[in-house]
Amino acid sequence: RGYTQFRYNRLPSFERNDDLINEQGDRFLGKNQGFGIRRARLVIFGDIHEHVSIYLQPDFASAIGDQLNVAIMRDWYADIFFDAKKEFRLRLGQSKVPFGFENLQSSQNRAPLDRNDAINSAFRDERDLGAFFYWAPAEIRQRFADLANSKLKGSGDYGVVGFGVFNGQGANRPERNDTLHAVARVTWPFLFGKQYVEVGAAGYYGRFNVTTGTGYTTQGDSNMVDARAVASLVIYPQPIGFVAEYNVGRGPSLGEGDESTVVASRPLHGGYAQLMYRLDNVLGISFLPYVRGTLYQGGKKAETNAPRYDVRELELGVEWQILKALEVTGAYVLSDRTSSRAPYEQEQGHVTRIQVQVNY
Amino acid sequence: RGYTQFRYNRLPSFERNDDLINEQGDRFLGKNQGFGIRRARLVIFGDIHEHVSIYLQPDFASAIGDQLNVAIMRDWYADIFFDAKKEFRLRLGQSKVPFGFENLQSSQNRAPLDRNDAINSAFRDERDLGAFFYWAPAEIRQRFADLANSKLKGSGDYGVVGFGVFNGQGANRPERNDTLHAVARVTWPFLFGKQYVEVGAAGYYGRFNVTTGTGYTTQGDSNMVDARAVASLVIYPQPIGFVAEYNVGRGPSLGEGDESTVVASRPLHGGYAQLMYRLDNVLGISFLPYVRGTLYQGGKKAETNAPRYDVRELELGVEWQILKALEVTGAYVLSDRTSSRAPYEQEQGHVTRIQVQVNY
Amino acid sequence: RGYTQFRYNRLPSFERNDDLINEQGDRFLGKNQGFGIRRARLVIFGDIHEHVSIYLQPDFASAIGDQLNVAIMRDWYADIFFDAKKEFRLRLGQSKVPFGFENLQSSQNRAPLDRNDAINSAFRDERDLGAFFYWAPAEIRQRFADLANSKLKGSGDYGVVGFGVFNGQGANRPERNDTLHAVARVTWPFLFGKQYVEVGAAGYYGRFNVTTGTGYTTQGDSNMVDARAVASLVIYPQPIGFVAEYNVGRGPSLGEGDESTVVASRPLHGGYAQLMYRLDNVLGISFLPYVRGTLYQGGKKAETNAPRYDVRELELGVEWQILKALEVTGAYVLSDRTSSRAPYEQEQGHVTRIQVQVNY
Repeated sequence: RGYTQFRYNRLPSFERNDDLINEQGDRFLGKNQGFGIRRARLVIFGDIHEHVSIYLQPDFASAIGDQLNVAIMRDWYADIFFDAKKEFRLRLGQSKVPFGFENLQSSQNRAPLDRNDAINSAFRDERDLGAFFYWAPAEIRQRFADLANSKLKGSGDYGVVGFGVFNGQGANRPERNDTLHAVARVTWPFLFGKQYVEVGAAGYYGRFNVTTGTGYTTQGDSNMVDARAVASLVIYPQPIGFVAEYNVGRGPSLGEGDESTVVASRPLHGGYAQLMYRLDNVLGISFLPYVRGTLYQGGKKAETNAPRYDVRELELGVEWQILKALEVTGAYVLSDRTSSRAPYEQEQGHVTRIQVQVNY
Repeated sequence: RGYTQFRYNRLPSFERNDDLINEQGDRFLGKNQGFGIRRARLVIFGDIHEHVSIYLQPDFASAIGDQLNVAIMRDWYADIFFDAKKEFRLRLGQSKVPFGFENLQSSQNRAPLDRNDAINSAFRDERDLGAFFYWAPAEIRQRFADLANSKLKGSGDYGVVGFGVFNGQGANRPERNDTLHAVARVTWPFLFGKQYVEVGAAGYYGRFNVTTGTGYTTQGDSNMVDARAVASLVIYPQPIGFVAEYNVGRGPSLGEGDESTVVASRPLHGGYAQLMYRLDNVLGISFLPYVRGTLYQGGKKAETNAPRYDVRELELGVEWQILKALEVTGAYVLSDRTSSRAPYEQEQGHVTRIQVQVNY
Repeated sequence: RGYTQFRYNRLPSFERNDDLINEQGDRFLGKNQGFGIRRARLVIFGDIHEHVSIYLQPDFASAIGDQLNVAIMRDWYADIFFDAKKEFRLRLGQSKVPFGFENLQSSQNRAPLDRNDAINSAFRDERDLGAFFYWAPAEIRQRFADLANSKLKGSGDYGVVGFGVFNGQGANRPERNDTLHAVARVTWPFLFGKQYVEVGAAGYYGRFNVTTGTGYTTQGDSNMVDARAVASLVIYPQPIGFVAEYNVGRGPSLGEGDESTVVASRPLHGGYAQLMYRLDNVLGISFLPYVRGTLYQGGKKAETNAPRYDVRELELGVEWQILKALEVTGAYVLSDRTSSRAPYEQEQGHVTRIQVQVNY
């Protein structure tokens, strides 16, 4: 099982800016780009005992420097269930950190092409290595399962209550200090009239070891306070959907003005709001037009020098679910964002993007 | 499904030359070498819908610097069929670029140990990332399928007509300019008396961004014209077989004389002719003796500095198809070729090689 | 099929030493560490013909520099059986070099968390690329199979007699000289009263090409004699078990005193003894307490500069076989060992470790 996303971001737009890039979101943005394979996933999963299941997901579109398409781990965890109804479980290994909603939603199900900067900047690849405890009543587990598909766009089951400890340096990176990060999250999906609604909140705390290059310094210790809180509201698309999330906190970041080359733990805030409408069975095809506005002001700790981003972005798009096996998304993005490359200048422009997703 | 090739290239020969290497062909040639795993392939493929199929092939014998045997993508594509007879299709993703015959033939089926330099120099790993359209009538699709095995050594189905656009920098490498490459190919396999014959032609055009090291320069822009045309003739081994291909064009290359450190888009030409004879059921084993002569004068754009190669090579070999699962090939190669390492000197010598191939 | 090992080595101990590291054993030891995935294995194996079988095992927890969790080959071989009873076979590809017992025993079955330094220092990842011949009578093959599980902790079938040639630079590394290594081994498992006992001996000889960094030199040629002999005694845990191995030889190593920056082929010796006791069905769970003492004085050729190690280590542990799918091992290690990092100082300390192993 798995999915692959092919992309092309160089279609004509009204205001092209070749320096408009977003390395965390999609490395195929900006000049000197063409076709890209954004994700190439294979999943091996199953119950290996009535109390133990595994979920192993490598990505074959990872990059090591200029070498693209290397197979690198994404998820690699075991769930150990304590009770016969599987309501209580311990998740060991590399998995998504339970923080927010969109971070936990599979890219296979998300409508916009990239995750929002505001909350996705919390963890590299949304994942880390640790031990997490999840609890959800059996009926809510079933509800999570029913919602997690390309039509309803749920997050899957990360528990009604989840908490855990993890290294904190992000997926597939060595831990670089002796402190663990801690996270806790609660969420609750419920029927409101005829429509499912989910509200959630989460927070984490830890110390992140930041990397700096020549010309940049850290203020004091390079292990910096890294803490955030997030609130999430999801109205599932039946047929009108709405998602909004906002997080505040502090974390490693370059400053402004005189401090523009000094990394310190600085305040951050940002979020997004997304409206969508599901149109089923228009000549046998499902359409999902959506619009999303994103705002983020704060650092991206996982990048060298933890640059400070100022992001204002509006994405208008439509997802065509042509077949269960084949989805096409077109999007027009109006963006005003900080470049991912030093000296981290602010760039404005529009991008017209297309993605073909194959589900298998 | 997949196959693995184990090799040993250090058997005694009449004229050994330790500096005779061929990095594109086989990194285990030359001095300080022993056993090598040339290919370690696993394929996942299948129809995921009556109009969509996938083909995912990582190679577990890829190298990143001195780290051998890393899993890196080779093929990763989806075929989207427009009609019920599957005659028209769009191929999206990383796949072989339809140019020539031997490039498209699987190494699992090829008799000589390495592909010829003349046409294989067109694309790194024969592949690129793009969108290709293929058409073939149902009966010809069946013919392609019947011919693609280790006995008849066909190329598989890349259409009777194929054309497409792709990045142009080669498999698993970032695109480095804003221009796409374009390719078109026609081929036709037909019965001539009692023997299948296939004739084909193809051409491509694009701009390739070349990499140079210290001491080497480019003439003007590093995005250079890269264009070739190829003609192919295949007489399938029933029991006598013959293959010949020739390509001409121009592409990034070092020059000669005063220009020997300057990369520019320069003319290239070359090809090969191969004769083979299939002997079935000699004490239960199939033998396939073959002889191939190769000539190439031109650059290899995918290597740093795009060195200019002058290759004249004669390979005498025999493939033993001991079991469907097990084939052994022995070859004696008389070679006069440019070294893959600066200062790119001309080297002459003989190599005795053996390969064990396991098919699964 | 496969298994994964999750570890945490930072539990409190009586004498903590943050500089106590062991890069060959477990890269998650020492300061600035947290959770680790030590092994993430998937195995594809099977008979592809009555005379040919394959065994393909990538590891998804390999590292390339700071990039963790890359998929890199461990085993990748074909067995070619000469007779119908499968007593005689040739193994081609990358596989474990038949030397000692613990090197051949899967980490899935071993009780102590890391292999012993004394014998494991012989080959990087215990493996190399080559051709090996194995012979074992059918009844002994069955005995090897019966012993190779987590309860009896056997090595699997590497023949009663095994010999072969291989590159000698270790798994997944380029060969760097023209000489092959040669190895031979004999072992015999037999019933002694009601308990299985196995005795074995092996030896190898070759030349290893050592790598040195700034400030370190080699004495003469960097291709140095690398030869060892090992004797092994195994009493399988029915319920009391005992394993002891010792090897002597010479290999690339830094010297002592004035020679402490000079790599030469120098004498080495060392081994270990391990006592264990299997307690089945204690409230439905199997316990296996064990104690192992290790001694090693000699070089580790596979590391840069081939540092000379002086290792004295005592490990007390217990393995809980909670389910077939789930094992937990706790260990307390009293260690006096040379650091894996220049200037290779001697470090003493204790470590409390825990591992969760998932078998699938």
